Amino acid sequence: MTNLIEYETASHEVRAVYDDIRATRQTEYINNFWKALANHPPTLWRTWENLKEVMGGEGDIDPLTRELIYIAVSVTNGCDYCIASHTAAARTKGLTEKVHGELLAIVAAANSTNRLATGYQIPVDEQFR
Amino acid sequence: MTNLIEYETASHEVRAVYDDIRATRQTEYINNFWKALANHPPTLWRTWENLKEVMGGEGDIDPLTRELIYIAVSVTNGCDYCIASHTAAARTKGLTEKVHGELLAIVAAANSTNRLATGYQIPVDEQFR
Amino acid sequence: MTNLIEYETASHEVRAVYDDIRATRQTEYINNFWKALANHPPTLWRTWENLKEVMGGEGDIDPLTRELIYIAVSVTNGCDYCIASHTAAARTKGLTEKVHGELLAIVAAANSTNRLATGYQIPVDEQFR
Amino acid sequence: MTNLIEYETASHEVRAVYDDIRATRQTEYINNFWKALANHPPTLWRTWENLKEVMGGEGDIDPLTRELIYIAVSVTNGCDYCIASHTAAARTKGLTEKVHGELLAIVAAANSTNRLATGYQIPVDEQFR
Amino acid sequence: MTNLIEYETASHEVRAVYDDIRATRQTEYINNFWKALANHPPTLWRTWENLKEVMGGEGDIDPLTRELIYIAVSVTNGCDYCIASHTAAARTKGLTEKVHGELLAIVAAANSTNRLATGYQIPVDEQFR
Amino acid sequence: MTNLIEYETASHEVRAVYDDIRATRQTEYINNFWKALANHPPTLWRTWENLKEVMGGEGDIDPLTRELIYIAVSVTNGCDYCIASHTAAARTKGLTEKVHGELLAIVAAANSTNRLATGYQIPVDEQFR
Repeated sequence: MTNLIEYETASHEVRAVYDDIRATRQTEYINNFWKALANHPPTLWRTWENLKEVMGGEGDIDPLTRELIYIAVSVTNGCDYCIASHTAAARTKGLTEKVHGELLAIVAAANSTNRLATGYQIPVDEQFR
Repeated sequence: MTNLIEYETASHEVRAVYDDIRATRQTEYINNFWKALANHPPTLWRTWENLKEVMGGEGDIDPLTRELIYIAVSVTNGCDYCIASHTAAARTKGLTEKVHGELLAIVAAANSTNRLATGYQIPVDEQFR
Repeated sequence: MTNLIEYETASHEVRAVYDDIRATRQTEYINNFWKALANHPPTLWRTWENLKEVMGGEGDIDPLTRELIYIAVSVTNGCDYCIASHTAAARTKGLTEKVHGELLAIVAAANSTNRLATGYQIPVDEQFR
Repeated sequence: MTNLIEYETASHEVRAVYDDIRATRQTEYINNFWKALANHPPTLWRTWENLKEVMGGEGDIDPLTRELIYIAVSVTNGCDYCIASHTAAARTKGLTEKVHGELLAIVAAANSTNRLATGYQIPVDEQFR
Repeated sequence: MTNLIEYETASHEVRAVYDDIRATRQTEYINNFWKALANHPPTLWRTWENLKEVMGGEGDIDPLTRELIYIAVSVTNGCDYCIASHTAAARTKGLTEKVHGELLAIVAAANSTNRLATGYQIPVDEQFR
Repeated sequence: MTNLIEYETASHEVRAVYDDIRATRQTEYINNFWKALANHPPTLWRTWENLKEVMGGEGDIDPLTRELIYIAVSVTNGCDYCIASHTAAARTKGLTEKVHGELLAIVAAANSTNRLATGYQIPVDEQFR
């Protein structure tokens, strides 16, 4: 299992990222994802910079919808960690049980029709090109 | 390649679904997806009933967001037909080039972090359970 | 694009595999899959030996059912070549339009419920362990 | 973790589905999958209606073969819950250790050749189109 | 189909990325991937910064091996564009037909054994944890 | 859960494979993967023969790089068993924490750009064909 790097034993560059996570998210808690990435500081730094911008930066898609999209991908990929952490994050942003159900229904439907389109080898309609 | 079944040569039960698609979507056009599914009428009927409800029925998630979720799954699964048809559908529901870019940036980020969480075998934090 | 190696220009070891494919399948035709694998003779040989046994050797699963299973995997992975070639192969082994439709309906349903089980993070029932 | 909804605390519409599952399967046991879907009754109802028909309704594919196809998809998608529950279901329908081994050998072979066909970018033979 | 943005009609910020791609890769050619990402400049910029570092920056993994890893992922995901572009890139870095064959044989073997491990629901050995 | 077959209770043909694994790897330990495959001896034998050759046989790709490729596939497929066992194997062949981090960064980047190329439906450049 991956070594999880705590703030107390982290290098200066890792601490700088942890500090920014804490300041940006306004929480003391650093979750395991970041403590694992800290084993390779360049990946920690790049991943945080990217996520901070894509999930939290300026944009036309609202924060909860970003989480719905993120969860849809994570469910399709079967990433347990990501499903658990982002479903929790989505709840703090307003995810209700009803919206969660609707989200998973769309994810299930898309996975189903994706395979039907692929299995029947359906040619793309000219007007969709 | 799959035989595409046209309205003119379709059975009564297939025509009934085509008629409902036309009435529901208020268009004369039946796209290739349905013409291919028509090779197995029960699948055509069940898939249409399901999609009509999940993508177009009552719900707290707005129509454009449903398409964003659908596209996120289709991109992750690599279904060319579904990406093409639903990106086209999303444009009719207000998808801008900017939102499309933001959507794909989230999909790309999630695919990236899904693999980092999996590759590092990160244990789920107690508070996310 | 991959160079397709024809019998005439193939090495002795590649020809030996081509000969065995022809004898086993009782056809003169060598399809592109093998002509591409011939770029790396050990892979050609191992893949043919494995497939010959798994898809055509002794076993309790009948030949058409083996193709249904193979197609189910190929559709889920989105492998266009494998879907096209094995759907064609299945037709020579008795695949009807109706069975094809039922197959894809099961594949679609499984892809759908797989994501629901994953998305809801459902714990495995004790009795299924 | 998802809340599992028991019969005793379920709404009228959820109980109706549970009752139908019990009657159709002739068992008192409701497995966790349905208890999780019950968080979103429309998804519970649609999923049950679909599965009841696709896995248990009229058709030319026999019940055990349907389970083999379902398992092939679930293994390819890596859905632990679905693999566990449907491998158990298949055993009640006659799955032997030998057939299980043959099934997984086909699934493994298809996953392997899918990637070879994709990696070598092999063009589909004219005769398979 | 996505609009491909040419240098001549690109904005200042897109041109800056194109200029850096040209300088870094020492070529005039900008491939379609970047011309498509240019529809959303922040994604173009972040993706280029990330790839430049991960695929071309300092590190203990040599350039050809990085491409082998990249191709292994792209084949597993079935991304035709990425397979084509990175197989071409790998050839410029020394990929031979033999190494290409060995690479795909490993990718095929791993995809095969991944499914066997998953299908048999094999518990992780204590010593691997 | 799958029955794990121990040497003491194994058939003659299974023991022969276990003996070869021990001799080839110069260890007494047989890991769970092989003990599970032993439920279907032909799959055990074929899988071992294939892996022995692909991962350990003659070739231009060095042993550690083969493991990196294997891990890249396993992470993309989300196979926990394979990630754990082959990350352990790679460590015995020289995998450092730094190389592990670089590997996962490439895997993450490829998964990200695969989806961007697919989502934008980017046509393959003529020169990559």
